[in-house]
Amino acid sequence: VTRPTFPQIEEADADGDLAAAYTEMRATLRVPWVMFAARALAVFGGFVPAAWQSAQPVFATRGLEAAADEIRAAALMSDPAPPDPRPSLARAGIYEDTSLPAIRSALDALNYGNPKYLLLITAWCEGIQGRSSGGTHPTVGTRPGTGTGTGTGPHAGFDTAPLPSGTPAGMPVLHLVDPAAASETVAGLLAEITDAHFHHGPASDFRVLANWPDALSVLHREVLAPVVRTEAYDRTARALLDLARARVAAFPAPAGLSAEQVAAVCSDTERAAVTAMLAMFQRFIPDVTIDAVRLAHALDGAEHAAAPAFPPPNGCPD
Amino acid sequence: VTRPTFPQIEEADADGDLAAAYTEMRATLRVPWVMFAARALAVFGGFVPAAWQSAQPVFATRGLEAAADEIRAAALMSDPAPPDPRPSLARAGIYEDTSLPAIRSALDALNYGNPKYLLLITAWCEGIQGRSSGGTHPTVGTRPGTGTGTGTGPHAGFDTAPLPSGTPAGMPVLHLVDPAAASETVAGLLAEITDAHFHHGPASDFRVLANWPDALSVLHREVLAPVVRTEAYDRTARALLDLARARVAAFPAPAGLSAEQVAAVCSDTERAAVTAMLAMFQRFIPDVTIDAVRLAHALDGAEHAAAPAFPPPNGCPD
Repeated sequence: VTRPTFPQIEEADADGDLAAAYTEMRATLRVPWVMFAARALAVFGGFVPAAWQSAQPVFATRGLEAAADEIRAAALMSDPAPPDPRPSLARAGIYEDTSLPAIRSALDALNYGNPKYLLLITAWCEGIQGRSSGGTHPTVGTRPGTGTGTGTGPHAGFDTAPLPSGTPAGMPVLHLVDPAAASETVAGLLAEITDAHFHHGPASDFRVLANWPDALSVLHREVLAPVVRTEAYDRTARALLDLARARVAAFPAPAGLSAEQVAAVCSDTERAAVTAMLAMFQRFIPDVTIDAVRLAHALDGAEHAAAPAFPPPNGCPD
Repeated sequence: VTRPTFPQIEEADADGDLAAAYTEMRATLRVPWVMFAARALAVFGGFVPAAWQSAQPVFATRGLEAAADEIRAAALMSDPAPPDPRPSLARAGIYEDTSLPAIRSALDALNYGNPKYLLLITAWCEGIQGRSSGGTHPTVGTRPGTGTGTGTGPHAGFDTAPLPSGTPAGMPVLHLVDPAAASETVAGLLAEITDAHFHHGPASDFRVLANWPDALSVLHREVLAPVVRTEAYDRTARALLDLARARVAAFPAPAGLSAEQVAAVCSDTERAAVTAMLAMFQRFIPDVTIDAVRLAHALDGAEHAAAPAFPPPNGCPD
């Protein structure tokens, strides 16, 4: 069963300002892919380059890295704990001597990046809806109690020291399978995973894991399908969204664009589409964040899954 | 604090196929307004007229009315129960001899319609994402256990007898305040309510209640603000969404359009925007449904709030 793919500008098809934004986004976030949300937003006027420009300074800080670490840890669902999928994977021919190391490495990269992308989509979403995406706290739109609660002001404790830019050592290259060009089996598996989540299209994470369809099938069936959209899962997703909003409101400067700023680079119709797209992906990314953490949890344990796989080296910032 | 209003085609500005769809939607659903979602979707190609044509037969049945009644009852939050806002309303000059009857009547109309609109947005959302919006059950996209569970087949027990069409006796006329033309106080109140929900714009319900801004201010502060976005509130919203999906999957015929069908009336970019808009409003309408039921609950008790205020007369259909 195939369906029209979701309109988006893939990394290989970007040029000009968009390609530059994609490249800088990967380097600043230290991740090996551009999120589905950005690729889908890219079809609507000048939003992505302008919004990325607004976000870049905050996303290049150690404070951002710390907020992402908190989100990753909060994505771990320990009740119910995942089963060990390795016996089933081994029966499918997937073990340490074959593709398991590559799958683990891909999950490490995805888990490193998903929390950062949740913060990015949240900043963009809150900003266009007229609420704080950091910095100044407008009278309307900031709820009490969403600051970090440390230090003396709402932004106290946010570490603005710079992160190193570029690909961390050991970061794998990720290949996203194109569902439109995939076999019927692989396209059907991606559609099955999409539908189990009530999503609109396959997440980048699953397009990456679809390079190993037998493994993805086992991992979905044994580790994800039993929990996706259960009450515990939705409670975890809600907690991630709350946490992301709180951390974004405590950013030292706005990382999103207001509706007025979006209107400068988009038509009214594009602005409406961007608003909706941001709202949709703000709900989508928490799910995917939980999923990828849960897969690492099942394969490598809770401690590994909740920790950043590519922490920036310590150093003497500035 | 003002912000650019959310792009939409208001009822007074519609013409041609769109105006005809708006008119038939109101008559079929027996409600006095066209939902925000439809007005916002209307800027994207031919989606609304085509999608409404697909939905109309199912939405003209008593089975639809019964599903809406279930959703309305499930929107009632009894823990915590709402406080009685009438003392504060009276202090603001709002009581039985002034505007309270009109506010009650507006709430009755909104509560009658919101659950129907949740079913409509859900059918459209599931359909464009490749899942069942009723009728045939495709292999991909239908989760087990979402049928009605009555009778012998998934659609058994769905009453396809026709509903009377048109405005029920006693249904009030609703006026939606235009936030862009409203006083700064009223626009600020609407923005405050929007932000408390983390929404993208004011629901029709609040634009109606903004005709009585002093009352809306009291009702929001005392009845809604203490619960909106709490865990109990989000749990109720999740249950409404689940219930809506289950009832839609049990519709006797598809009430939504597939992505292929949307592609016949929309460009790729419009289809992406429609998909996102539907996903956003599928999360928005449960919130508003809970809110309006809770306001009626506070003013008139749980039994009144959970019941349909404009039940169709019994009769001998056909």
